[in-house]
Amino acid sequence: MMRQAGRYLPEYREVRAKAGGFLNLCFNPELAAEVTLQPIRRFGFDAAIIFSDILVIPHALGRSVRFEVGEGPQLDPLNTPAMVDALAREAKPETFTPVYEALTRVKAALDPSVALIGFCGAPWTVATYMVAGHGTPDQAPARMFAYREPEAFVRLLETIADASIGYLVGQLRAGADALQIFDTWAGVLPPHEFERWCIAPTRRIVEGVRKQVPDAKIIGFPRGAGPQLPNFIDKVAVDAVSVDWTAEPSFMRERVQNRVALQGNLDPLALIAGGDALDRAVDRVLENFGQGRLIFNLGHGIQPETPIAHVERMIKRVRG
Amino acid sequence: MMRQAGRYLPEYREVRAKAGGFLNLCFNPELAAEVTLQPIRRFGFDAAIIFSDILVIPHALGRSVRFEVGEGPQLDPLNTPAMVDALAREAKPETFTPVYEALTRVKAALDPSVALIGFCGAPWTVATYMVAGHGTPDQAPARMFAYREPEAFVRLLETIADASIGYLVGQLRAGADALQIFDTWAGVLPPHEFERWCIAPTRRIVEGVRKQVPDAKIIGFPRGAGPQLPNFIDKVAVDAVSVDWTAEPSFMRERVQNRVALQGNLDPLALIAGGDALDRAVDRVLENFGQGRLIFNLGHGIQPETPIAHVERMIKRVRG
Repeated sequence: MMRQAGRYLPEYREVRAKAGGFLNLCFNPELAAEVTLQPIRRFGFDAAIIFSDILVIPHALGRSVRFEVGEGPQLDPLNTPAMVDALAREAKPETFTPVYEALTRVKAALDPSVALIGFCGAPWTVATYMVAGHGTPDQAPARMFAYREPEAFVRLLETIADASIGYLVGQLRAGADALQIFDTWAGVLPPHEFERWCIAPTRRIVEGVRKQVPDAKIIGFPRGAGPQLPNFIDKVAVDAVSVDWTAEPSFMRERVQNRVALQGNLDPLALIAGGDALDRAVDRVLENFGQGRLIFNLGHGIQPETPIAHVERMIKRVRG
Repeated sequence: MMRQAGRYLPEYREVRAKAGGFLNLCFNPELAAEVTLQPIRRFGFDAAIIFSDILVIPHALGRSVRFEVGEGPQLDPLNTPAMVDALAREAKPETFTPVYEALTRVKAALDPSVALIGFCGAPWTVATYMVAGHGTPDQAPARMFAYREPEAFVRLLETIADASIGYLVGQLRAGADALQIFDTWAGVLPPHEFERWCIAPTRRIVEGVRKQVPDAKIIGFPRGAGPQLPNFIDKVAVDAVSVDWTAEPSFMRERVQNRVALQGNLDPLALIAGGDALDRAVDRVLENFGQGRLIFNLGHGIQPETPIAHVERMIKRVRG
């Protein structure tokens, strides 16, 4: 499940309280490994995803990143060409060491049949947080900066992409079996901007990683790309794509799933609702995409209020 | 332009201050007609859209709707089957009289070459506000209510749809030349829910209006429907659809614009950005969709901070 370690688990809340803050947890190899393993122990999932955050990259580029309880992340906004020029050109590699160590610990503890997934945010989505300084409903600050200062914005995306290449290669070397690139806010981009701000920098990452690790398995997630998804997989050589719960079945089967594996796409709210609504939603994912290559998953992150019994019910229904 | 009367115009801000509150302005025929005409006088647009709000329907169904300055609309949340059962079955028709009177005034004042557009919200989008009591980033309260209480939710949508039929027919009889149905939040729905919560109630409205006014011209706007748009126009007999700025050109041309006219789809942020970014964004809309039937428009509502000079620049560029 996406964001499968998290606040819906009492054992997670306990470790998080002990760690003292979200970033402390991300950068504590022992505790990050522990919370990564918790859902595998409890539910027996087929894959584990390393506990971390997409804002590790701005942190490694020298930006201040704060997580306050009950709020989204807060950064110092970066919204002028001069601020882009002043940004570190390269990530401090030691920032990533605890994440790599967590991956190595998890890999050693996992049954070899369980895949371990590393990840990063796609440059566009990471940039939306860096420019605005926080999450926004429509990513207007980054979109506006990109309209007004396209050259500086390209430099920003390339800096993020290059830092992400090193980070992803490091994750593979530390034990990750596959990588996922989350572009949560790809869906707000007009087509021309989708080419420049989503496809181009993601392709730069995929090519950069494969230059060092040619057989790297990579899952793309340009969320909300809709009819632009075939174009995305034409240009970015991913092995699979994640799709959220709004994916239209026949289009996705005929234009996407015939070329790459699909990961998804249960509505996380159906998992909260439970009961018949959950059963029917699970069945529809399997009916829509179960005849092709499908990695059953949520269409987006699990919500903290999700009842554990509903997760168990979902797993039972998927495994039949 | 969508939401073409509004806070970006000093003459609008003056009238709004005089009216004392947003709903007072919607329900004051003289002032609503005046602000509807302001952008036509200033810019010479080819069509006027009546100044009103999609929450006129819950108001007419007896729900409390408040607009506070600087905040979104506030309603008393409606989130149990018993509350749906207690809802008025029919709208109070006198609620709509001032809107009809405003339409008649505008029609009389407009040059006959300028089309007058009436509108309502689609039942799904109106319901998202009624259930949550306010705008939400992901419409989770309405989606959750629909998962948990699908029968009550159908009743709610049908009540909204039936009230909307009377309201739209009244708008046509009062002088509207065409109607638009705004489903701003259609894009968050999974495909099965898109059928039930977007397509079915919108179809009910379109069929209900055409039973009374067979040649009614209707524009649909299931925003974010993406690959589900061909299915929408298969089932809802609209004359045109609006698309937001994320529409993928070749898909839209080959699967949608070959069957109905397209309205859209300039990014409202490009209009704020101005300069070369605006010119290129205008050119791309015309390149993408100008060979087919296109009503040039924004892809969503104009923002209050939009400079008037940018609107003038856009019009000049579109008209060549």
